[in-house]
Amino acid sequence: MNPQLKLSNIRNVLIRQEETIIFALVERAQFRINDIIYRPGGITLRGYDCSFVDYLLHGTEQLHATVRRYTSPDEYPFFDDLPEPILPPIDMGHVIHYAGINANRDIKQVYIEKIIPAICAPGDDEQYGSSAVSDVACLQALSKRIHYGMFVAESKFQAERDALMDRIHARDREALMGMITNNEVEEKLLKRVERKAATYGQEVDSPNPEYKIKPAFVAELYKKWIIPLTKEVEVEYLLKRGE
Amino acid sequence: MNPQLKLSNIRNVLIRQEETIIFALVERAQFRINDIIYRPGGITLRGYDCSFVDYLLHGTEQLHATVRRYTSPDEYPFFDDLPEPILPPIDMGHVIHYAGINANRDIKQVYIEKIIPAICAPGDDEQYGSSAVSDVACLQALSKRIHYGMFVAESKFQAERDALMDRIHARDREALMGMITNNEVEEKLLKRVERKAATYGQEVDSPNPEYKIKPAFVAELYKKWIIPLTKEVEVEYLLKRGE
Repeated sequence: MNPQLKLSNIRNVLIRQEETIIFALVERAQFRINDIIYRPGGITLRGYDCSFVDYLLHGTEQLHATVRRYTSPDEYPFFDDLPEPILPPIDMGHVIHYAGINANRDIKQVYIEKIIPAICAPGDDEQYGSSAVSDVACLQALSKRIHYGMFVAESKFQAERDALMDRIHARDREALMGMITNNEVEEKLLKRVERKAATYGQEVDSPNPEYKIKPAFVAELYKKWIIPLTKEVEVEYLLKRGE
Repeated sequence: MNPQLKLSNIRNVLIRQEETIIFALVERAQFRINDIIYRPGGITLRGYDCSFVDYLLHGTEQLHATVRRYTSPDEYPFFDDLPEPILPPIDMGHVIHYAGINANRDIKQVYIEKIIPAICAPGDDEQYGSSAVSDVACLQALSKRIHYGMFVAESKFQAERDALMDRIHARDREALMGMITNNEVEEKLLKRVERKAATYGQEVDSPNPEYKIKPAFVAELYKKWIIPLTKEVEVEYLLKRGE
């Protein structure tokens, strides 16, 4: 088996991504909600009618696409009209199968509607640029984490091909969801991310414990959105995988 | 006095920037040195002969310039051929005086030659894109911190105008350096950033203390480069301020 598909290696990648997500959220939480940056036309951009955040996210993806970010099997863009790389093509191998899956629309919606109001103080501090640059980092980190579900799914597929194929042919999403679920691992994850958020989001030198984002919210974020979206990606991947 | 120039407010900004710098360094430290990304031509980019990191940094600055990042008095670009904003101009006020100061050349050199070899494992892991995106975040955070020295200098100038003007007219850099130095504050800062690095860079759930970057190195980084470069910016600013 390709080492990238060893479940222990995948877990290490996912565990390290927790820091990236927490750091990005802590950075965004410095600024107020600033909801004007999420509304198309909220800020007037000459020649554009999208939101300020979409403008910056799109521009960042255009730049990163030129250096081949989205040919990597663990990177999925929010926009599909991206330029060609200026780097020579390389064969990234076929660790996972191309399945045409992209959960970014849901990810962006959850981010703007659920995460931002939970981690940021209400109101407007005019820190639009800094907020939006942080948003891009948060969205990219969440997207990478959730699409990594395809590596998890491929690993499980190779380990339990026959049992999974049976449910894939029946297109039995519920059974597949059950087969990819490991409650014990999920419970451990939720406790771990809460401890990480308490560590990395704490105010140093504060006499009482003070946090830049609520540790319990980070666990909730995983429980309510990151894990379910990842598992949806896994199930979609398996359904494609068996075609 | 403009509240942005109150020394207590400036200190709060600088203290919060410590987290941003530490998070960015911890993120970069996941990857190896990958020195190919810093060498012009090290990676072949069709139509460009700069280094991979300069390509991404330049592209990021071009994008951010369009949303007016570098008209803000606390943001200074690494490149000077940047496009005009697509946002209407706004009056950012004149909190500090325009002094034509830009320390980014020195900052980039210190970053590549001193910081990267200290925080990253040697060698090449082919994570060029992720490394370079982290580099951009590190460089922007360091640049913002060091140029914030102009706010410190302006605040001190307004508080001790006569005494400083005397040394400015004499162009006595050494005396100015002495007048802007507060050893007690610096000592506190060094201890604080070491504690922060130990907190935010620690491995959670590790039985022995384990750090993603050495806490003592973060203190050294401030002592040897960030503080001296900031103070150079302050002195240059004061010399211009008195003209």
